[in-house]
Amino acid sequence: MTLDLSSRIERLQAAMAVAGVDALVVTPGADLRYLTGYDAAPLERLTALVVPREGDPTLIVPGLEAAEAERSPAGLAGMRVVAWSETDDPHRLALDAASDPRVLAVNDQMPARHVDAFGTADPTLRWRPAGDLLSDLRLRKSADEVSSLRRAAAAIDRVHARMGEWLRIGRTEREVARDVSDAMIEAGHARADFAIVATGANAASPHHQPTDAPLAAGDPVVVDIGGSTREGYCSDSTRTYLVEGPAPDGFQDLYDVLLEAQRTQCDYARPGVSAEALDRVGRAVIADAGLGAYFIHRTGHGIGLETHEAPYIVEGNPTRLEPGMAFSIEPGIYLPGKHGARIEDIVVVTADGVERLNQRPRELSVVSG
Amino acid sequence: MTLDLSSRIERLQAAMAVAGVDALVVTPGADLRYLTGYDAAPLERLTALVVPREGDPTLIVPGLEAAEAERSPAGLAGMRVVAWSETDDPHRLALDAASDPRVLAVNDQMPARHVDAFGTADPTLRWRPAGDLLSDLRLRKSADEVSSLRRAAAAIDRVHARMGEWLRIGRTEREVARDVSDAMIEAGHARADFAIVATGANAASPHHQPTDAPLAAGDPVVVDIGGSTREGYCSDSTRTYLVEGPAPDGFQDLYDVLLEAQRTQCDYARPGVSAEALDRVGRAVIADAGLGAYFIHRTGHGIGLETHEAPYIVEGNPTRLEPGMAFSIEPGIYLPGKHGARIEDIVVVTADGVERLNQRPRELSVVSG
Repeated sequence: MTLDLSSRIERLQAAMAVAGVDALVVTPGADLRYLTGYDAAPLERLTALVVPREGDPTLIVPGLEAAEAERSPAGLAGMRVVAWSETDDPHRLALDAASDPRVLAVNDQMPARHVDAFGTADPTLRWRPAGDLLSDLRLRKSADEVSSLRRAAAAIDRVHARMGEWLRIGRTEREVARDVSDAMIEAGHARADFAIVATGANAASPHHQPTDAPLAAGDPVVVDIGGSTREGYCSDSTRTYLVEGPAPDGFQDLYDVLLEAQRTQCDYARPGVSAEALDRVGRAVIADAGLGAYFIHRTGHGIGLETHEAPYIVEGNPTRLEPGMAFSIEPGIYLPGKHGARIEDIVVVTADGVERLNQRPRELSVVSG
Repeated sequence: MTLDLSSRIERLQAAMAVAGVDALVVTPGADLRYLTGYDAAPLERLTALVVPREGDPTLIVPGLEAAEAERSPAGLAGMRVVAWSETDDPHRLALDAASDPRVLAVNDQMPARHVDAFGTADPTLRWRPAGDLLSDLRLRKSADEVSSLRRAAAAIDRVHARMGEWLRIGRTEREVARDVSDAMIEAGHARADFAIVATGANAASPHHQPTDAPLAAGDPVVVDIGGSTREGYCSDSTRTYLVEGPAPDGFQDLYDVLLEAQRTQCDYARPGVSAEALDRVGRAVIADAGLGAYFIHRTGHGIGLETHEAPYIVEGNPTRLEPGMAFSIEPGIYLPGKHGARIEDIVVVTADGVERLNQRPRELSVVSG
């Protein structure tokens, strides 16, 4: 993937001018990677991109990171790199590189410690989180970014395709999660980010952490997994499996409602639809079956260099979908103490609908146990 | 490990009273884990421990995390858990749980977005990073914590013991790093956190990221690796290897200086010695050999639930060592464009010296290639 970093910086500076922000400082994380291609570790020493409203940005790095910064995409493209030594005041250096801004935006994830240190370096400074300044940029994926997300989705689909190898009676959630994590790497991810394996009543907790609970015949199992590729783009897909055996009473009906809700949402999503309307459409289908109280989370989240980023598909978010936006559609139904189910695909908005990046069958998948 | 959470909260509240802080809010990360045992994912929805200066703490969690929070050590010990739904204002809930504090401390790692949201929920609030309030608590490890660090160190030692299997002529840094990461899991880590494998001139960059550079005969290779155990405690150890063959001119002499510096520092460390003096002692040995300009980073960092935490062994840190402090001693010498070397052990301060948790030989280790 070729990163057009200078165009990203230009669009950012235009947004900063409109917002009345004099400079933006960005510490390691997805925002830094988006603007520089530099996948810096979030260590305690200050590494920061400094973008003034006009003029060239500067990358401030600890001396021992200088070589890495120089061979990052931004470094190779000629961005100025300033290395600081253990006894310098790096926050002062950053403000100097921005010609002493009055209003400083910081990346949303900047640790409070650094925010405070900028205030100490200049007590008259006003700060705000970057918020839309950066999320608006990252919201609409370029064709290259969509290709990256497509590759990540294909990789996680390959892992789901193998689920029958691991979901066996008597094996524990933790053992399955371990196998799945290994398989994510084999399938082409650089990193396994998470593996939710939730069986029986555990599946009623959407963010369940794998335990030593063993799988049993007739158990519904929610498997929600994701990783990130070497380029940094994330996968995230959920399928619900049934370990061969008699399903719990009413489970198939519940699942059919869920499937209908997820399909309806995927069909409805297109440019111009609002994020909250997309959420409501799925909620209406589930509520109509008398299960509304058991869909206890939003419909989805954006995805890109982070597993969770804008746009959030949730009540209260009026953002209208536009081509290039990428997000999950993942309704779920959770009956406390009994069982749960979720179906999740990543979609990208096209000119007149969405492309589903995940291709695995969505019907309840029975594994032989 | 039995977590004595109530004693940690009590000591924290005593420190808050001295510092004039009305409440502390802690988002996911090592501080939260230390205070609650809850290993919450750092997602975008607010999860936060709220500790008032007096009275019981509250754990504020998104609804879909409630089941996980309830079965965390804090939840099981009876800590109050308040779940919020997608349309609540969780920052307002947190301030309510603290009885509307005037001065709010936040964990050093709290994302700027949350700091800002607390300010929006109450514009009259004054905030500060927790800093010493939390780091002073975590600085001196309990006997249980030392046992955990000892187990983590033994695990990483088992990985270094196998290095000869992977450091072969023609294999790349990236391939070796991948093998090492797998081996960290096999050796008992729950997660491989990092694997620096730097050969030849790459070893002159202390935080080098593995590349496709192949190992060659006579290459010095710096291997700095670490992971974390299921309990959350970290390992971190560096050894420098020589791939069998004629070493670069002067390399053995350089290495002998480094070995002498590291041994001198380990011998000197004991209760009452200051962090900066410990740094200077190693620097003096290296400078005396005319190599002072090539030791370009601090001597070490504390370690516990984070790979890098207080105390930092660096010029400007007057902290005096006390029993229970755990940190790395890792001098290095880096000749730009040529090669580098580093030796790193984790040590714990005892009544009259330190215990080195890493036990692998420190002499230059020749692998058969």
